[in-house]
Amino acid sequence: MPEKIALMGSTGSIGTQALDIISKYPDKFQVEVLIAGNNVDLLAEQALRFQPDCVVIANPEYYRQLQDSLQYTNIKVYTGSDAVEQVVASSSIDVVIASIVGYSGVRPTIAAIKAGKKIALANKETLVVAGELIERLIKESGSKVIPVDSEHSAIFQCLVGEAGNPIDHITLTASGGPFLNMPREMLKNVKPCDALKHPNWNMGCKVTIDSASLMNKGLEVIEAKWLFGLAPEQIKVIVHPQSIIHSLVHFADGSVKAQMGIPDMRVPILYALSYPDRFISDLPRLMLNECKDLTFSEPDTKRFRNLNLAYEAIRKGGNMPCILNAANEMAVRAFLDEKIAFTQMPDVVEYTMEHSAYEGTPDMDILETTDTDARTTAFNYINKLQKEK
Amino acid sequence: MPEKIALMGSTGSIGTQALDIISKYPDKFQVEVLIAGNNVDLLAEQALRFQPDCVVIANPEYYRQLQDSLQYTNIKVYTGSDAVEQVVASSSIDVVIASIVGYSGVRPTIAAIKAGKKIALANKETLVVAGELIERLIKESGSKVIPVDSEHSAIFQCLVGEAGNPIDHITLTASGGPFLNMPREMLKNVKPCDALKHPNWNMGCKVTIDSASLMNKGLEVIEAKWLFGLAPEQIKVIVHPQSIIHSLVHFADGSVKAQMGIPDMRVPILYALSYPDRFISDLPRLMLNECKDLTFSEPDTKRFRNLNLAYEAIRKGGNMPCILNAANEMAVRAFLDEKIAFTQMPDVVEYTMEHSAYEGTPDMDILETTDTDARTTAFNYINKLQKEK
Repeated sequence: MPEKIALMGSTGSIGTQALDIISKYPDKFQVEVLIAGNNVDLLAEQALRFQPDCVVIANPEYYRQLQDSLQYTNIKVYTGSDAVEQVVASSSIDVVIASIVGYSGVRPTIAAIKAGKKIALANKETLVVAGELIERLIKESGSKVIPVDSEHSAIFQCLVGEAGNPIDHITLTASGGPFLNMPREMLKNVKPCDALKHPNWNMGCKVTIDSASLMNKGLEVIEAKWLFGLAPEQIKVIVHPQSIIHSLVHFADGSVKAQMGIPDMRVPILYALSYPDRFISDLPRLMLNECKDLTFSEPDTKRFRNLNLAYEAIRKGGNMPCILNAANEMAVRAFLDEKIAFTQMPDVVEYTMEHSAYEGTPDMDILETTDTDARTTAFNYINKLQKEK
Repeated sequence: MPEKIALMGSTGSIGTQALDIISKYPDKFQVEVLIAGNNVDLLAEQALRFQPDCVVIANPEYYRQLQDSLQYTNIKVYTGSDAVEQVVASSSIDVVIASIVGYSGVRPTIAAIKAGKKIALANKETLVVAGELIERLIKESGSKVIPVDSEHSAIFQCLVGEAGNPIDHITLTASGGPFLNMPREMLKNVKPCDALKHPNWNMGCKVTIDSASLMNKGLEVIEAKWLFGLAPEQIKVIVHPQSIIHSLVHFADGSVKAQMGIPDMRVPILYALSYPDRFISDLPRLMLNECKDLTFSEPDTKRFRNLNLAYEAIRKGGNMPCILNAANEMAVRAFLDEKIAFTQMPDVVEYTMEHSAYEGTPDMDILETTDTDARTTAFNYINKLQKEK
């Protein structure tokens, strides 16, 4: 029997790549639920192709349009965030692919975890915002979380069969983004269209900006802490512009394991779905003799301050990573809207972290309040920066 | 209770490094037996330090001297190859480290496998010469073989937790040796002292010459076939002069796993002894940011013909790898004695492979005869080459 899949964020970058993978293994996977936020046209097209049991469009504005598009099918059509949380928890679902970007992905992912589902986790904000809570919920529900992020998938793959073996540290590799070698002065004048050109990975808009600002790596450090139960000082970051080594585990005996490949998100997506097995795929292969030289260097945390802010947030713990994440989402939005400069994004994050109420052991309600308040603080600070221009 | 270890080849490069490791974990490992061929002084020194139950000097010439050196101890002293085979099979032994170099290591390793011991296998000739036989013996006795060669240890480590998952191929990395970029004309005039300077690894004499001539990689291809149950075309070789990536597994889903580290044989020795666990060590660490750029290129099988000869031997199977190995041991000896040129070593191997009797399913007796006959054929051909000089 194929595994029944609920795909949250089906119209996004990970979502569409996941459907590409799923379509190749009809005897292994069956699309049961498709969930999208606003892209109703693509969602309808996907539904007609994959014939799920039901579809959910989170934004009620598009509900009628979706119903019309699917009127001659048996596919059930729902809308609203409550519907999202209900369908992913339904007993007919085996696997939930959590690939809604940003904070909006947190609540539905938590609903799936509470229901004990196997989760292919692409939404890193869930662990960034609510890592401690999630850790507890996983223990309670028996849910199994398999990371989709290429770096975390790499670490996860390197740790297979190594349960209980002592880890010295892990190293997350960072491409360094499009501005790796750009002097500080020029960074100020970077435009959104420049930042959206990622050298190696084909990703969504938010992740691409985060990648250019190194915040993506910061969020990944926090995510890694919760996924692998490590201390912040056990998580290192190294710049590796070729993105061939996806990440490494340094065991305490001196041996290092790495997972490698060409930069293609479909490899970690397939792994998350097939784990603990591996399926034969026709995805493009890594050819070492055709590789550029592999290089490594320390990240420049003076030009890219976000990485240190993320370490600070995870060291403080509590609701601080939630504040970091909320402020960053606001900063990225403001940068894309050309309200602030590329180099002002860390200013917004830092200011918000310093001017938000700290909570040591937040529950989900406190995190909700934290998120809202931090966004307001960041919003006001962004307006202030804009006026000073 | 510490694991009781029999160390075959204790005075060699692997043997001394193994004792260095063992000495650091007195609660984990206990030296029960030390075995050496000729180096009686070092063997006696090791015996006094590690206080094994018994020692064996294979060459009877040194028996009296060893007895004298250990006369005020309770350490039992034996000599001869029968004694070697008996002590490694004794019921008090948990682990046998098989690190006698060359063909002489084959019989005692087989004795340990027959006795169902856990084997840390550093003697690659055992699998090269008698792979098919060994495969059957392991099934019968339940012996567990863990490779010590850095490349095979790398593959072994990458396969932990991946049982049953489809492998596309593996890649063994080769440093390329000291003559990687030397033109063919100059290779002819290479002296033994040049060939003995390996750029990265600190190894014994035979292995260092094999490494310079790429025969070492050829033997490793054959070894890998038996260790991991792969077809010859699933085993690829790539030149990676930095020796940081020790080898890679390319899974059929497109994901690649690699094991890395600084070139230090003590890491794979420790792993073979601690497996499936890992122990915390103080061995030097891989620092990626201090690494040179990692590069990869295809091996030049025109200048280094041994690699293709090894592929030919394993494709033909039967006693052909045994012939290859015997001819190569003679060729290396002749090169070290300055009887033949560096570039004539493959000539000796090729000639011997073409002029030896083929046996499709040899038993150990046939392999013994094959080995003797091949050495004679190689010896005569070497004399012929010498006369032509």
